Amino acid sequence: MQPLRIAHVAPMATSVPPPRSGSVQTMTSLLTEGLVARGHDVTLFAPGDSTTAARLHALSPHGYWHDPTMWPWEMYELLNISAAIERAAQFDVIHYEAGYYPMSMAFTRISPTPVSQTIHHAPSEAEVSLWRQYPDAPFIAISAEQARRLSGLNVVAIVPHGIDTDHFAFSATPDDYVLFLGRFTPGKGPVQAIEIARKAGLRLLLAAADEQYYREAVAPHVDGTQVVYVGELDFDAKVRLYGGARALLYPVQSAEPFGLVLAEAMACGTPVAALDRGAVREIVDDGVTGGIFADETAMAAGLGEVMRLDRRRVRERAVERFGVMPMVDGYVRAFRAIVAQHQARG
Amino acid sequence: MQPLRIAHVAPMATSVPPPRSGSVQTMTSLLTEGLVARGHDVTLFAPGDSTTAARLHALSPHGYWHDPTMWPWEMYELLNISAAIERAAQFDVIHYEAGYYPMSMAFTRISPTPVSQTIHHAPSEAEVSLWRQYPDAPFIAISAEQARRLSGLNVVAIVPHGIDTDHFAFSATPDDYVLFLGRFTPGKGPVQAIEIARKAGLRLLLAAADEQYYREAVAPHVDGTQVVYVGELDFDAKVRLYGGARALLYPVQSAEPFGLVLAEAMACGTPVAALDRGAVREIVDDGVTGGIFADETAMAAGLGEVMRLDRRRVRERAVERFGVMPMVDGYVRAFRAIVAQHQARG
Repeated sequence: MQPLRIAHVAPMATSVPPPRSGSVQTMTSLLTEGLVARGHDVTLFAPGDSTTAARLHALSPHGYWHDPTMWPWEMYELLNISAAIERAAQFDVIHYEAGYYPMSMAFTRISPTPVSQTIHHAPSEAEVSLWRQYPDAPFIAISAEQARRLSGLNVVAIVPHGIDTDHFAFSATPDDYVLFLGRFTPGKGPVQAIEIARKAGLRLLLAAADEQYYREAVAPHVDGTQVVYVGELDFDAKVRLYGGARALLYPVQSAEPFGLVLAEAMACGTPVAALDRGAVREIVDDGVTGGIFADETAMAAGLGEVMRLDRRRVRERAVERFGVMPMVDGYVRAFRAIVAQHQARG
Repeated sequence: MQPLRIAHVAPMATSVPPPRSGSVQTMTSLLTEGLVARGHDVTLFAPGDSTTAARLHALSPHGYWHDPTMWPWEMYELLNISAAIERAAQFDVIHYEAGYYPMSMAFTRISPTPVSQTIHHAPSEAEVSLWRQYPDAPFIAISAEQARRLSGLNVVAIVPHGIDTDHFAFSATPDDYVLFLGRFTPGKGPVQAIEIARKAGLRLLLAAADEQYYREAVAPHVDGTQVVYVGELDFDAKVRLYGGARALLYPVQSAEPFGLVLAEAMACGTPVAALDRGAVREIVDDGVTGGIFADETAMAAGLGEVMRLDRRRVRERAVERFGVMPMVDGYVRAFRAIVAQHQARG
């Protein structure tokens, strides 16, 4: 098959890959480099300080997270995607990674080249009902959970996020703790993680940035021995923390469209204990890579079994399902379907 | 000359004209209806509860100011302008009234029909330097002051705002007060207006919404006899208040790109006393429709002379310069220039 000419449009917030954290930028980078590795002709629309083997089109030398004069940021997002549309004839497909909301929708009927989008959040019903005015606009969903929310829209494919499994190193022998990693918000369930660890008589490490909800709701439970706050970690320390955990606790309270920390922990060989919400069932293979529980009580009771899962098998399954190349191949299939759909419509 | 086929793209915030206040919506309505009255074929892109003699294209039944589920509002702005671009072949010109920022810029190179914009604020240097990536995008400036800020851009014409001078009724004989009307912000100078009125020994009426800056900085000076706060008024009460004023005080502290209250007061026959900042010199004919002063002391000293100006002549000059039809004719000339520019470029 002929290589595709792809415009990959990143958010203009920060470089691709990001200097520290930024899940959209990380995923965009992995996909871009993977597409280039597969022989496709990719132009990345991103800030000028990005690093890529693709051709780089830079509207500005750096992202607006780093420059208060780059305001309103929406204008940078908009002029970045429009720069790709202006050159539409040079591409087979233009794909937008919507860091915030899919501004790309505005171009789906104007562009001679198909414009597709991945959104990285769980959209509200009001958002989706507006987007339904564009029933042909092609979406690539990150989970069946997200695809369900996009009902009435043109969801061409479901492609789970990939992670760089080479960098999430396997750890055969864990340390003596279970782990909560993720932002301190009520939706992520850090307080529930503490309760569960206490009930199970396990030491818990908490890792994330020190936000207001941490200080108000989480910190009062931190005792420094059984419940330990380790702060926000850089990438290498995060990988070590995953690898040292006997299990990752994921008592998620809201329906998330994905759960990157699940895939990351699993890649390090660490089994996960998760509540049955949102996309959890699509990411965790119950009894293989972790346990899926109806509530916190069941999770506390089942943690022992989760911690006894075969860590090597957890790692293998994660690599197979959430490696970069499965994601890249999923996107290539989706792009080809989008091009075919576009041609069929004339 | 052949009538123009015009797409006039309004903000999606509220109806056109607005239910209460909204200077962008008011100006958009006056321009749209004036263009229709001159025989042009106008399609107004605005919320469905708008009232117009033009053809109405409505993305939604009402504006996002009235509906918290219409969020993020930027998507409504964007899909509204893109709806006009999708139908570009049906128009000679597409004109965007940028309530916030000119999202239309993103389409100027993509659309087969020229896309022009009026911005309603004083843009920052950072904004303008981003827009300079689109040196051909046609702007219609609302003042020479605003045009100066748009240096390096394609400013096709300067067309001052028009007001509905039929509705700002002339008042030959004023009451016993001078007037401050405008939002309570440091930039509008309400505290300076109080000082000036005190120095001149004149009674001052203040009219605007009761915002935080009013309560903090202005209210302590209000005594109910010499300095009176009359609240936020509806249109008819506002016209009566203008008509009853011996002079409007406009001690503006920041460089504004226009000053609608100046034109409105003048239409009622009320002379204005203004500080020499921003677009003031373009709106006030010094010694005819008001006085222009270097500072507050000079304004206090010169108020007597301002109040002695011939109110009928103030009204006549305002109608001549800031009536709707001068604005409409200015826009038609600008649109024809934009079409010619576009054709010349091929």
